[in-house]
Amino acid sequence: MKIKKKIQQARTLMDALPYIRKFNKKTVVIKYGGSAQADPALKEKFAQDIVLLYLVGIKPVIIHGGGKKISNLLDKLEFKSEFVDGLRVTSQSVMEVVEMVLGGNINKEITNLLNYHGAKAIGITGKDASFIEAKALDEGKYGLVGDITKIDHKVVEDLIAQDFIPVIAPIASGGTNHPGFNINADLAASKVAVALRAEKIIFLTDTPGLLDSDAKLISTLEKEEILELKNSGVISGGMIPKTDACFNALEEGVGSAHIIDGRVEHSILLELFTKDGIGTKIK
Amino acid sequence: MKIKKKIQQARTLMDALPYIRKFNKKTVVIKYGGSAQADPALKEKFAQDIVLLYLVGIKPVIIHGGGKKISNLLDKLEFKSEFVDGLRVTSQSVMEVVEMVLGGNINKEITNLLNYHGAKAIGITGKDASFIEAKALDEGKYGLVGDITKIDHKVVEDLIAQDFIPVIAPIASGGTNHPGFNINADLAASKVAVALRAEKIIFLTDTPGLLDSDAKLISTLEKEEILELKNSGVISGGMIPKTDACFNALEEGVGSAHIIDGRVEHSILLELFTKDGIGTKIK
Amino acid sequence: MKIKKKIQQARTLMDALPYIRKFNKKTVVIKYGGSAQADPALKEKFAQDIVLLYLVGIKPVIIHGGGKKISNLLDKLEFKSEFVDGLRVTSQSVMEVVEMVLGGNINKEITNLLNYHGAKAIGITGKDASFIEAKALDEGKYGLVGDITKIDHKVVEDLIAQDFIPVIAPIASGGTNHPGFNINADLAASKVAVALRAEKIIFLTDTPGLLDSDAKLISTLEKEEILELKNSGVISGGMIPKTDACFNALEEGVGSAHIIDGRVEHSILLELFTKDGIGTKIK
Amino acid sequence: MKIKKKIQQARTLMDALPYIRKFNKKTVVIKYGGSAQADPALKEKFAQDIVLLYLVGIKPVIIHGGGKKISNLLDKLEFKSEFVDGLRVTSQSVMEVVEMVLGGNINKEITNLLNYHGAKAIGITGKDASFIEAKALDEGKYGLVGDITKIDHKVVEDLIAQDFIPVIAPIASGGTNHPGFNINADLAASKVAVALRAEKIIFLTDTPGLLDSDAKLISTLEKEEILELKNSGVISGGMIPKTDACFNALEEGVGSAHIIDGRVEHSILLELFTKDGIGTKIK
Amino acid sequence: MKIKKKIQQARTLMDALPYIRKFNKKTVVIKYGGSAQADPALKEKFAQDIVLLYLVGIKPVIIHGGGKKISNLLDKLEFKSEFVDGLRVTSQSVMEVVEMVLGGNINKEITNLLNYHGAKAIGITGKDASFIEAKALDEGKYGLVGDITKIDHKVVEDLIAQDFIPVIAPIASGGTNHPGFNINADLAASKVAVALRAEKIIFLTDTPGLLDSDAKLISTLEKEEILELKNSGVISGGMIPKTDACFNALEEGVGSAHIIDGRVEHSILLELFTKDGIGTKIK
Amino acid sequence: MKIKKKIQQARTLMDALPYIRKFNKKTVVIKYGGSAQADPALKEKFAQDIVLLYLVGIKPVIIHGGGKKISNLLDKLEFKSEFVDGLRVTSQSVMEVVEMVLGGNINKEITNLLNYHGAKAIGITGKDASFIEAKALDEGKYGLVGDITKIDHKVVEDLIAQDFIPVIAPIASGGTNHPGFNINADLAASKVAVALRAEKIIFLTDTPGLLDSDAKLISTLEKEEILELKNSGVISGGMIPKTDACFNALEEGVGSAHIIDGRVEHSILLELFTKDGIGTKIK
Repeated sequence: MKIKKKIQQARTLMDALPYIRKFNKKTVVIKYGGSAQADPALKEKFAQDIVLLYLVGIKPVIIHGGGKKISNLLDKLEFKSEFVDGLRVTSQSVMEVVEMVLGGNINKEITNLLNYHGAKAIGITGKDASFIEAKALDEGKYGLVGDITKIDHKVVEDLIAQDFIPVIAPIASGGTNHPGFNINADLAASKVAVALRAEKIIFLTDTPGLLDSDAKLISTLEKEEILELKNSGVISGGMIPKTDACFNALEEGVGSAHIIDGRVEHSILLELFTKDGIGTKIK
Repeated sequence: MKIKKKIQQARTLMDALPYIRKFNKKTVVIKYGGSAQADPALKEKFAQDIVLLYLVGIKPVIIHGGGKKISNLLDKLEFKSEFVDGLRVTSQSVMEVVEMVLGGNINKEITNLLNYHGAKAIGITGKDASFIEAKALDEGKYGLVGDITKIDHKVVEDLIAQDFIPVIAPIASGGTNHPGFNINADLAASKVAVALRAEKIIFLTDTPGLLDSDAKLISTLEKEEILELKNSGVISGGMIPKTDACFNALEEGVGSAHIIDGRVEHSILLELFTKDGIGTKIK
Repeated sequence: MKIKKKIQQARTLMDALPYIRKFNKKTVVIKYGGSAQADPALKEKFAQDIVLLYLVGIKPVIIHGGGKKISNLLDKLEFKSEFVDGLRVTSQSVMEVVEMVLGGNINKEITNLLNYHGAKAIGITGKDASFIEAKALDEGKYGLVGDITKIDHKVVEDLIAQDFIPVIAPIASGGTNHPGFNINADLAASKVAVALRAEKIIFLTDTPGLLDSDAKLISTLEKEEILELKNSGVISGGMIPKTDACFNALEEGVGSAHIIDGRVEHSILLELFTKDGIGTKIK
Repeated sequence: MKIKKKIQQARTLMDALPYIRKFNKKTVVIKYGGSAQADPALKEKFAQDIVLLYLVGIKPVIIHGGGKKISNLLDKLEFKSEFVDGLRVTSQSVMEVVEMVLGGNINKEITNLLNYHGAKAIGITGKDASFIEAKALDEGKYGLVGDITKIDHKVVEDLIAQDFIPVIAPIASGGTNHPGFNINADLAASKVAVALRAEKIIFLTDTPGLLDSDAKLISTLEKEEILELKNSGVISGGMIPKTDACFNALEEGVGSAHIIDGRVEHSILLELFTKDGIGTKIK
Repeated sequence: MKIKKKIQQARTLMDALPYIRKFNKKTVVIKYGGSAQADPALKEKFAQDIVLLYLVGIKPVIIHGGGKKISNLLDKLEFKSEFVDGLRVTSQSVMEVVEMVLGGNINKEITNLLNYHGAKAIGITGKDASFIEAKALDEGKYGLVGDITKIDHKVVEDLIAQDFIPVIAPIASGGTNHPGFNINADLAASKVAVALRAEKIIFLTDTPGLLDSDAKLISTLEKEEILELKNSGVISGGMIPKTDACFNALEEGVGSAHIIDGRVEHSILLELFTKDGIGTKIK
Repeated sequence: MKIKKKIQQARTLMDALPYIRKFNKKTVVIKYGGSAQADPALKEKFAQDIVLLYLVGIKPVIIHGGGKKISNLLDKLEFKSEFVDGLRVTSQSVMEVVEMVLGGNINKEITNLLNYHGAKAIGITGKDASFIEAKALDEGKYGLVGDITKIDHKVVEDLIAQDFIPVIAPIASGGTNHPGFNINADLAASKVAVALRAEKIIFLTDTPGLLDSDAKLISTLEKEEILELKNSGVISGGMIPKTDACFNALEEGVGSAHIIDGRVEHSILLELFTKDGIGTKIK
């Protein structure tokens, strides 16, 4: 019967109540990347998740990456890339491409998507009001790859206070007449979360979370255990910067850090609004 | 599989998104009565519904009745009642009992229930800040049964602005040294909704809604049709004051009026957050 | 001659000027009880006093008791009472009566009275916004007699900021599905005064104030002297909780505590607005 | 007995309650002049009256004159005066003396007096923020005697909003490099009252009020009757500008105008806080 | 002598005083384009001008174009362009390039430049908070070239209220899953100026202003004269959309419109802060 | 050519940009006296300077003296003066003259001048809101010459917050019925600057600044060097109180103190807005 199904729906809604209550008016920083940012269907779900958080009184802040699109455009433009330590050295012309793709294309695409699901999103980069400042990483070894030196949290807080959802591209201001810096999105997310004294930071990845040596999902982890897992090689490769970013955020006062599977639809809701979440929670 | 079930839950949450968006920051007045107010399990569900509305940014205002409990206490105290036109004449001593039950017992019970589900509810009567004023109905034919003459909406709005959920007992102030008036809760709800320029008014009843001459639920109704249904006798008895209250609210600018089945758990959510609702909607 | 008498009146008004100046914008907590709450003429004078304080810029907060009315209703309902240590054990049914009388009858009667003398009073109990929380006193020896564990001062301050006079019934919230606690009004007044960092707390009693061993009024007293007077038996009986409440308030930062004769008309004004006051002032 | 006398005092205070309530948050403009401004004892009483109004929530605005002190200083400085139509022609040097006496001496004396009775008074002239602008009266026939062309009410309202009592000397700004204008204090008071949409304007004079042809005090008067009384010669001499100022104020929306006897101590309180007042009330 | 030169400088500063006073707190919309946007030295001067306006209390809003850079990138990417009515048809891939260049490159470059001269600039496009909405121009004849249908002025005003300088790229939001629209920057500037009820709109061009049939600068012009000049062919080519934008802005309430020579350094200051300005002023 | 000259003007404006940026929203206290206050042309320039500071977002506070005008009026009134330690003993009658000249004449003249150049100035003395309190200097040796005991910075800050430029006459309140005190304007300026935590204090004098033993201008000075210069007699006479005032201000946290030549037109601008300033800067 129809009414019974409706009641069942209402009960499901009610299961979310304790979480809605718990995170009310709290800031949650979300590093958006991977498949969740590439697959059209997942993009829709992501936007729905964020707008739901926004409407139930949570304060989401999005920081996105943009790897593949940058490479694509660089290729089309036939830029030759030099690599050092496995990192592409960012020349001034590469930086221009990075900025166009991150700030002009991806950033506004996400912003637009959120707005059309009912949010009031604003897309910014660290150059806006110069709110993220950086210097060259390792004295310029990688060109315009930057190391964040300062975040002006008031700029972001003012936007949140006016009910905007800030969508942030990982670009930093480098000073007068400087083309700016390309910064690692994971670390940027971590530092923004710290600056905003966020309740949570969530990393959307293309893995189920942190896996132990038997490739089984680690549901919860103390931040101290990260070091051991790195030493033992369980954490490796692309997961290293993410866990470093988690560690840094937790060290500086963020409530908890989450590495979740962006390939699962509504993964953010599942992490925030269900009892065990779906990925790895680091405390 | 577990993750699939969770995703299903998230999808259900998403079904509510358009409604959450639509009623964001809107005031919804709810006349609370009948079984929903008597049955312990339904009371819990009611409180959950209201707290959910509150947390997702809707502004609920509750107005309650209290019929049976008043009769019970009058009986225990062995008060003899005189009836005129089927209405119990409210003497000064009866009024005292009415006020104790409504303002001291039921009002605070609802308030307490909401608070313990995570709201910030405050229980008031029309005597608080004298925000509801009345005069004797029909020149005192029924004793201290009152006819509302004025509602000071600013008092309620100020409380809402401070994030309170107002829980209102249907008692009006009658002036200096006056014991106050007992007022009809349905009409009080209607007038409060008008004064607050509410988006919706919802009546919780012990029927599925308005039924047509074949006892089938009427899902939607234009307010003009109410008159016809009354003339034809389809609307009768206790439903008359409720439909009158609906008519009055709609006439004075409230967006829509709903008569729903309080015996169905989460009926408020079902009405607000699903496509067809569950009771009768009058526009 | 008429004009001379008027001038005399104006001079009397002027005598109050230094006190009006001194207490401007200060919070004064008043424990209202005894004859002042029972005698119709004294009730009027009390209301006038409070409204005058309110209009000249003082912030009054009222906490009332309600002993006799509770007993009356319990008697009418033929409740049998068990006594332990001279205290009536509060069962759940007794609690219901206590709450109806305190929260539904007395509280609203005072609120109404103040409003009709020109104030904007709001009647609340500790259950509203759960602003007073308690646990069972002495592990439940006296049933639902409570021991205050927390007062959320912000709730009361917000109401004061909106120009309300809070009128508080001494009932505390006990948590989910809990019927609440009956709390001692003197102690509640003291704790509310502390939470609000009040300038003064005034207890209206049916005695001229504290009397020394020769039954002579003690005009002023250091708070340390209370202990001596208790040891020597000069303070005894019902005066013990009141002096304890005074001591507690002063210890926690309230400016001064006053025990005055509520049987004297305008006793509050006399205490606040004349040089020596009329009762006992404890510093 | 002492307590009885105190109660009598409290009752007197209570007689003022309805008036305190009535004028709460209302602006009252007071033209201060005559004996009340000259006699040391009356000055004290005046200051007490104003501070009492201020503390009980009324918003007083003072406008003063200063006739004799100006003449005294002009005499000492051996200025010769030319008279036209009975008015002293105000040359630039006379204007300088007028400004020193009004703005430097009298204005600050009143301000100081009010402050030391507990107010927060600020002394200004029409030159401050150029809030009163004027042009020469009758095309300069009387030199720098001015005719008010504009009052910037916001300047005064802003000061009131910061809890200042504005004390205004009747001098207007005349534009760039202009020495300013001497303006009639009665008319200035009237225009300020209109600009502030005051509840009342009160003129302190050295008469009991308006007297009828039998030299009996006229207690109340309709504004239309002023014309008749002028035509019949009952209103004459120095009373003409005062009644004109009253008429103008009432025409432009001020609630009532009062001409009272400044020689009576506490005359302002007597007028505001007693049933019949003491002078003439024009409606 | 040195001091004399300094005094001369101070005098020059003083010449600007009347203009600083006149435009205090007024909104001035500036269409930034042409050489002023291409030449490094002129860019610096432009930024200095804007920051000076900002610091002296004027509210600048920048709208920029970006023609050549878009063509350059399209060429590098070897996009073939179709032209209709002389307009390049904007396909979805072209739109992506447009958005990257305008929103990611040029917009942030200007923002950065302003910030490093001491402003607090924020770079946005019409997609942010969807504040500019458009539909396809001429039913899609030119692809994703848009026709503005709505501007949400509150978004921009909120940013100005937080002391941001908004730097706006001429891109509009087209609705759900829509890639957005490319909009004419001149018209966008005009519509934004109207929506913000701006005091002035200034167009930076590569001409001295409007020239008459003898190629002489027209200093001032009534808006009605524009039509004549168009009819007579004096206004032609690229100047037509600019004059149309001026006309539209003036029709809808903007105070004045200015077409000035962006090739002259500090041209904005010269127009705003000197007596005759330097270009054409249309009233 | 005309345009070149205009551009030169714009460049001059730009030279001021770094200083405008640096002092934005900062409070600058200016002791106004000497020729700059006497010479009509210099008065105009002074007013222009102050209004320019005001419009570009700096918060000027003026404190003035008035020596000669006081002497002139005392002479005209044939007051005989007694001198002690080279200071005129201020009797009550002298005080009255001082107050009339300072508060009534000079103060309002400056206020008026500023207003007519586009500011919103308000003239006050220490008696307004009793914001400067003093006691007799050296136990009354000099009569009513006062020694500042307290400055209520909030009064001045509130006026600044309402966009007023406070113009302060150096008179202090002395308590009830006290005629007030004459205070040294240099010291008053210093103490006001400290109370307001000003960025700078500037003394306008009739010398080029501090001169060394060769009568050459000392451009910058550490505050510690003042003592040496006093000991060596380089600082002497009227410069002693000024340097003492500077020293006091710097000791208590004011950013820098400046002694400049008020005889040079636009000297305030030259000091604030050019690289080396024109007088002596003490850090």
